[in-house]
Amino acid sequence: MQTIQVKTGSRIQFIDITSRVKEAIAQSGVRDGIGIVYVSHTTAGVTINEAADPSVVMDITFKLSQLIPHQDAYRHSEGNSDAHIKASLMGSSVHLIISGGSPVLGTWQGIFFCEFDGPRQRKVLIKVIEG
Amino acid sequence: MQTIQVKTGSRIQFIDITSRVKEAIAQSGVRDGIGIVYVSHTTAGVTINEAADPSVVMDITFKLSQLIPHQDAYRHSEGNSDAHIKASLMGSSVHLIISGGSPVLGTWQGIFFCEFDGPRQRKVLIKVIEG
Amino acid sequence: MQTIQVKTGSRIQFIDITSRVKEAIAQSGVRDGIGIVYVSHTTAGVTINEAADPSVVMDITFKLSQLIPHQDAYRHSEGNSDAHIKASLMGSSVHLIISGGSPVLGTWQGIFFCEFDGPRQRKVLIKVIEG
Repeated sequence: MQTIQVKTGSRIQFIDITSRVKEAIAQSGVRDGIGIVYVSHTTAGVTINEAADPSVVMDITFKLSQLIPHQDAYRHSEGNSDAHIKASLMGSSVHLIISGGSPVLGTWQGIFFCEFDGPRQRKVLIKVIEG
Repeated sequence: MQTIQVKTGSRIQFIDITSRVKEAIAQSGVRDGIGIVYVSHTTAGVTINEAADPSVVMDITFKLSQLIPHQDAYRHSEGNSDAHIKASLMGSSVHLIISGGSPVLGTWQGIFFCEFDGPRQRKVLIKVIEG
Repeated sequence: MQTIQVKTGSRIQFIDITSRVKEAIAQSGVRDGIGIVYVSHTTAGVTINEAADPSVVMDITFKLSQLIPHQDAYRHSEGNSDAHIKASLMGSSVHLIISGGSPVLGTWQGIFFCEFDGPRQRKVLIKVIEG
């Protein structure tokens, strides 16, 4: 298992961690298998989407924030229920097929850490299984 | 593969299954690897979110039910289309990194079975891969 | 790793790929393990839901399109931001437990390729890990 540190700079922010995930997979020495990219937080998630045009992930956060506003009739007293809901919608992990030591990603695909309650210091865990 | 039986008590309900998943992983005897927690239903899902304050998962179900109401212009004749939609949004599986015989969970993370069309008797499948 | 080609026929369409995924798993020769079904696109996803009544997946696309309209105050200039958002909500992969050479699916479960920006020629990747 490897750990990536991610420092986020605003409340809601998607951060491209593709190159750091690729590096961790390369360092694992595994040529063929699968990899899990796991977020051990409950107000952040992880997703795979377009990395070429940064406006794509801005549109994702715009729509998520419109559907799940920061303030609403929430019960949780910490004021960050929207972040918990968004985290479950994006999910706590993404999964990669590893071939020849690298993740098999589509032309436009990148891996994004999804901050919903920043800025914070966050951790992403990566585990590779040979097979 | 191991099976957990879950009895739900209302139409929409998130049930913390963390301790039972940990037990199943411990029983598998695998020290290091990954685990999949799989829901074999189409009107229920599974998610990882905060287990400390029960109001967090209440806020998730509140918002999901507001965005995807029970009654709407749905075609499916069984009257539970909202449950199918919510199930796909949460997902049919969550995944854990296993280290030292236990899942690596963040401080606030718990694993929740997501009932969207209860009360019912449900099944959760757990499979552990060594690596 | 195996590849399935999927030809979609309209902008938004869920296509049942269950039998083709089962075939790929059978061809892998693995009796027990896990399988990942991975979509290498950013305007398509994959989900597990009811395969018996086709109106179920129509209700999923109806609600997703209502919540995330094709036209909105999006920044991305290609006019398909809704497809990117829907893709992240469904997810880029689903995961199966394999037992006796077949995926363990619930009675009503099927695997659906989720097209959100078709019609297009698409690819689904399948990787099986023994364990």
